Amino acid sequence: MVQSEIPAVMKAAVMLKPGEIVIQELPVPQPGPDEVLVKVMAVGICGSDIHYYEHGKIGPYVVENPIILGHECAGIVAATGEKVSRFRNGDRVAVEPGIVCGRCEYCKQGRYNLCPEVQFLATPPVDGAFVQYIIMREDNLFHIPDHLSFEEASLNEPFSVGLHAAARTQLKPGSTIAIMGMGPVGLMAVVAAKAYGVSQIFVTDLEPIRLEAALRLGANHAINVRDHNAIEEIRRVTGGIGVDVAWETAGSPHALQAALGSLRRGGKLAIVGLPAQAEIPLNIPSIADNEFDLYGVFRYANTYPSGIAALASGISDVGSLITDRYPLAQTQEAMERARTNKAGSLKVMVYPNE
Amino acid sequence: MVQSEIPAVMKAAVMLKPGEIVIQELPVPQPGPDEVLVKVMAVGICGSDIHYYEHGKIGPYVVENPIILGHECAGIVAATGEKVSRFRNGDRVAVEPGIVCGRCEYCKQGRYNLCPEVQFLATPPVDGAFVQYIIMREDNLFHIPDHLSFEEASLNEPFSVGLHAAARTQLKPGSTIAIMGMGPVGLMAVVAAKAYGVSQIFVTDLEPIRLEAALRLGANHAINVRDHNAIEEIRRVTGGIGVDVAWETAGSPHALQAALGSLRRGGKLAIVGLPAQAEIPLNIPSIADNEFDLYGVFRYANTYPSGIAALASGISDVGSLITDRYPLAQTQEAMERARTNKAGSLKVMVYPNE
Amino acid sequence: MVQSEIPAVMKAAVMLKPGEIVIQELPVPQPGPDEVLVKVMAVGICGSDIHYYEHGKIGPYVVENPIILGHECAGIVAATGEKVSRFRNGDRVAVEPGIVCGRCEYCKQGRYNLCPEVQFLATPPVDGAFVQYIIMREDNLFHIPDHLSFEEASLNEPFSVGLHAAARTQLKPGSTIAIMGMGPVGLMAVVAAKAYGVSQIFVTDLEPIRLEAALRLGANHAINVRDHNAIEEIRRVTGGIGVDVAWETAGSPHALQAALGSLRRGGKLAIVGLPAQAEIPLNIPSIADNEFDLYGVFRYANTYPSGIAALASGISDVGSLITDRYPLAQTQEAMERARTNKAGSLKVMVYPNE
Amino acid sequence: MVQSEIPAVMKAAVMLKPGEIVIQELPVPQPGPDEVLVKVMAVGICGSDIHYYEHGKIGPYVVENPIILGHECAGIVAATGEKVSRFRNGDRVAVEPGIVCGRCEYCKQGRYNLCPEVQFLATPPVDGAFVQYIIMREDNLFHIPDHLSFEEASLNEPFSVGLHAAARTQLKPGSTIAIMGMGPVGLMAVVAAKAYGVSQIFVTDLEPIRLEAALRLGANHAINVRDHNAIEEIRRVTGGIGVDVAWETAGSPHALQAALGSLRRGGKLAIVGLPAQAEIPLNIPSIADNEFDLYGVFRYANTYPSGIAALASGISDVGSLITDRYPLAQTQEAMERARTNKAGSLKVMVYPNE
Repeated sequence: MVQSEIPAVMKAAVMLKPGEIVIQELPVPQPGPDEVLVKVMAVGICGSDIHYYEHGKIGPYVVENPIILGHECAGIVAATGEKVSRFRNGDRVAVEPGIVCGRCEYCKQGRYNLCPEVQFLATPPVDGAFVQYIIMREDNLFHIPDHLSFEEASLNEPFSVGLHAAARTQLKPGSTIAIMGMGPVGLMAVVAAKAYGVSQIFVTDLEPIRLEAALRLGANHAINVRDHNAIEEIRRVTGGIGVDVAWETAGSPHALQAALGSLRRGGKLAIVGLPAQAEIPLNIPSIADNEFDLYGVFRYANTYPSGIAALASGISDVGSLITDRYPLAQTQEAMERARTNKAGSLKVMVYPNE
Repeated sequence: MVQSEIPAVMKAAVMLKPGEIVIQELPVPQPGPDEVLVKVMAVGICGSDIHYYEHGKIGPYVVENPIILGHECAGIVAATGEKVSRFRNGDRVAVEPGIVCGRCEYCKQGRYNLCPEVQFLATPPVDGAFVQYIIMREDNLFHIPDHLSFEEASLNEPFSVGLHAAARTQLKPGSTIAIMGMGPVGLMAVVAAKAYGVSQIFVTDLEPIRLEAALRLGANHAINVRDHNAIEEIRRVTGGIGVDVAWETAGSPHALQAALGSLRRGGKLAIVGLPAQAEIPLNIPSIADNEFDLYGVFRYANTYPSGIAALASGISDVGSLITDRYPLAQTQEAMERARTNKAGSLKVMVYPNE
Repeated sequence: MVQSEIPAVMKAAVMLKPGEIVIQELPVPQPGPDEVLVKVMAVGICGSDIHYYEHGKIGPYVVENPIILGHECAGIVAATGEKVSRFRNGDRVAVEPGIVCGRCEYCKQGRYNLCPEVQFLATPPVDGAFVQYIIMREDNLFHIPDHLSFEEASLNEPFSVGLHAAARTQLKPGSTIAIMGMGPVGLMAVVAAKAYGVSQIFVTDLEPIRLEAALRLGANHAINVRDHNAIEEIRRVTGGIGVDVAWETAGSPHALQAALGSLRRGGKLAIVGLPAQAEIPLNIPSIADNEFDLYGVFRYANTYPSGIAALASGISDVGSLITDRYPLAQTQEAMERARTNKAGSLKVMVYPNE
Repeated sequence: MVQSEIPAVMKAAVMLKPGEIVIQELPVPQPGPDEVLVKVMAVGICGSDIHYYEHGKIGPYVVENPIILGHECAGIVAATGEKVSRFRNGDRVAVEPGIVCGRCEYCKQGRYNLCPEVQFLATPPVDGAFVQYIIMREDNLFHIPDHLSFEEASLNEPFSVGLHAAARTQLKPGSTIAIMGMGPVGLMAVVAAKAYGVSQIFVTDLEPIRLEAALRLGANHAINVRDHNAIEEIRRVTGGIGVDVAWETAGSPHALQAALGSLRRGGKLAIVGLPAQAEIPLNIPSIADNEFDLYGVFRYANTYPSGIAALASGISDVGSLITDRYPLAQTQEAMERARTNKAGSLKVMVYPNE
């Protein structure tokens, strides 16, 4: 193991139970032969972090013990195991948070996001990134260029969801798309659509600040669904045709039905958001008659290199999404801010080493 | 136009209104320059024929005037327009019943089944094949080998639906599949799965005769859903994993939900059947978390040559599906038989020139 | 037919024989029911036009009678047949120059560029666009927005070749690409790669003016193959890995071998350029061992809408490619300029109605 | 580790240098935590084994030390590491011979056959299967049903090459195919084409015994290229059209050119065989004009489960390919037989535990 000046202990923001995050001192871990120690420089707060913080579980994943949240992160290589060949100390890296087995049928087929053995940061019982140093396997790290900030690089995680939805729905230049829900995933999905060469992007949300952010990032038509019917607006602007592709990122039954209703014949729908209610009525004859495709989207696979390339090319000013910044000591405040200020905050960021 | 001995008039089974089919004499039509006159030798009765016969409409398609039903057919070339080059009198042909525009965006992209200008036999107001002679455009006809009977060739139409579902769901050798509903489309879908090299085929239905027929055609596991829970059975046999692919052909909400529930992670579902009820609740989180694909299936495209090749290779004894045979004069009886004898009849066939 | 002020006669630049183009007066043609009369506003000169002008043939296509060349064009709708519904007089349109049958196996599968019945402008014996008015079938016309100039819209034709190569080679954001040959097709291919979200584009040529133009359009690395070995340069910049995708547009054996040699393992090669010499040695074990894909590219299919959308979005300043402008009366001078000034001219444009 | 009666030492057929194989006693290895000890029951001799035996190298792979050859094998689980969960002693298994890293870009994308870290049985310096017991990682083993013999299961390895070629060339029911070269890979490729539902299979070779075997396995048209021109024959039978797909398995320049020349417009070619001569002239304009696809095929990925399913379904009598059988003690004789009797032997099999 090659290492530079690394302290013996570090600070971590540990969630003792839902709603209670405290700062603890923990020993800095040591990387194994194929692992890297990363000094965490920026961590974005994701909707799933907030959900664990509020409810202590998401579906089958239950917080049963103290856990460190946070999985959208980037940092600096601080130490490397003896078999690590692609990184050395000081390298700036984005972190792909899911460590996969590489041996199951899904991994073998390139759909490693479906690996049943995945260890995903901040998904119980795996600790996450609200901490000064984390260990990652070498293949989960990706170099980032100097001109890409750590906070932009941490956005590569939600960006990856959009890129994966784009690949699933075979987005291409000239496609028209509607993206429902302009939370952080939806906003980065706008950037993903733009990266795929799309020049007609409809977006919907209830919050003006989010719709304005979407327009800044490259959306062309923003629809506030408090005031307008999304299907009608989309059909009006497309001359009655509808869009080639729609993505539901809000986890809302209405948004899902609107997404389906906005499609043109032969269109493709990605289901990205997880609704609280399991059973949602869909118009099945419309799916058959129009030969719609519906694609579930679960995280992402093979998106990190292309995501970093797109962000580094300056495709959109994604840094403008970061509305709130906190040091690690104020992680609980950061979580509260993200939880309570949906009309005012877009992305809340924690900096463990500032 | 080249023609052989063709009568001036012919018999047609005309549905004057729902439930009333009479035999009328009509002039034998003359093919245009790129058209072919086909002497109709066999016509299968499809569920849609029965639906028009019973209800007078299917979705937006309404029977407003007398109409000739029937669209699964094969016959003999009787006359050819002057520009026709691929056929001559006496050729044995299968008829693809949808004439498409060739110029719209869907046609240009190879998804001609979505052509908004399609003229489809026996879809109002287009007359169908319960008649002695019909006109078809040259590109809708396909040669059949001598050893393939006309009635087998007419089954290429429902077979095409299965082949299209197979292409949509990327079926391949070694896939496992569950096919819900063993009506004629479901039964021919079993043959389609077999043509794609699948060797583990689950089928479900309520009627023993249909399940037995499915087993004869190549299905491996028949589940009578009166007695067994399809999801449990499929999971039991697959060691808890589920199937790679499922097709819903019954138009039943329960069958659709069972199809979705039978899929393994990453599985693919084709929605072939049209349920009477539009809105059906689906478990949306399961679609997202498991990255299911759902594909609407509307008719088929580019299936006729491969379908004929597969049927001609003797892949299954599809002729065994034909349980009832009627001359044209008894078309109404044939329709009644198909309508009322679901526990005893599989495919009812009409022979306009016998 | 609806029409506005259209003269009875028009001027056309007719090539009497290779090397001799004269201006003749011809009657303005009348559109059939599904056809449109287009007032031609801009026509780009393509390498194939020059080849017919110099050699009188390309492969099996031989100029045997006087012919009007030119097929990259855009204009204004001047009259419409009675069945035309999507256009009216005054509409600004780009012209897709190949009229296809819509009925052959290739058309039915969406690969209409392989239609054996295609009528392609300026491919003998079909007349082309160096003329004031041409007739086109409605489905070959595409609306262009007001802010896209006619000359930019005419570039959608060579752009389409690049877009088709991109689709064939499954280009996606984050891909790395090498494009060999920076003639007009190669230059527009750079724009196509950019439209597909690619941010690392290598280009090669012998002429500095072309390489500079490529850099202006969005290429990142220009290699003058007079001075540098393309394979070595590409491997050096990519850290020895090579590129994901390469396109050969020059029709040069050396460029083709360099394209193949530049690929990373698993890479994809598009063969766009037509070499004069048929048989070219390729390293076959390298194709098998590395699982390269090689894709022939013949014209394009289904690219016009996406191409216009990309050009209209201002993706690159494609207008800067137009180095020389001529009225119709000087078509021969325009052809000579394009033929002889390869070190100085990029795209030569003819304006039939100025 | 769970184990049953395993001897401390075993016999192995070690190639001391090219042309010299001796039987040695070696300690039976012990499986690591995620590994399985397999009692080897049948090993097929592959062309690559013979090549190493004759020439001591294949391309960059050089035999520098004594090595055990053989990589097409099946056997019985004899011991399992403590983390092994899918197998227990006595299980009958097929062995996928390439152990991959699971972490490189190729593995992550599902193209693990391109993994640069692969450890492949009998590719220097990795020892192979002419031995009584071998160690394999759990994910490289696949259950086989009782009615599939070990020797049939060992044929799943060359079968996999055909299945992979089928996937690469998007073979589907109704496709027409020409397979050039009826060595063991070509013969199993016939079975692969059949598994994909193909019913028109042309095959070529110089040896009557191989062509006869191909016909037994399911080929429809056998062409002895000593007597007939393959392109002419294929064009004659297909009415001048050519085949949808061609696979070159012989490693012969002539066969490759014939494969290319046999394709219909838009056809797809797989390059499976490795020619001795690197540079082979191909008709490049024909590739571009006809939009051919050429796909390199290197081993296979994700084929074992589907291959076993197809073989177990009794698709073809692949056991009939085994013409020669030897015990381990006669491995050198087996190799000589395979090397020298190309006109009489198809597959030569070694049984290490008989």
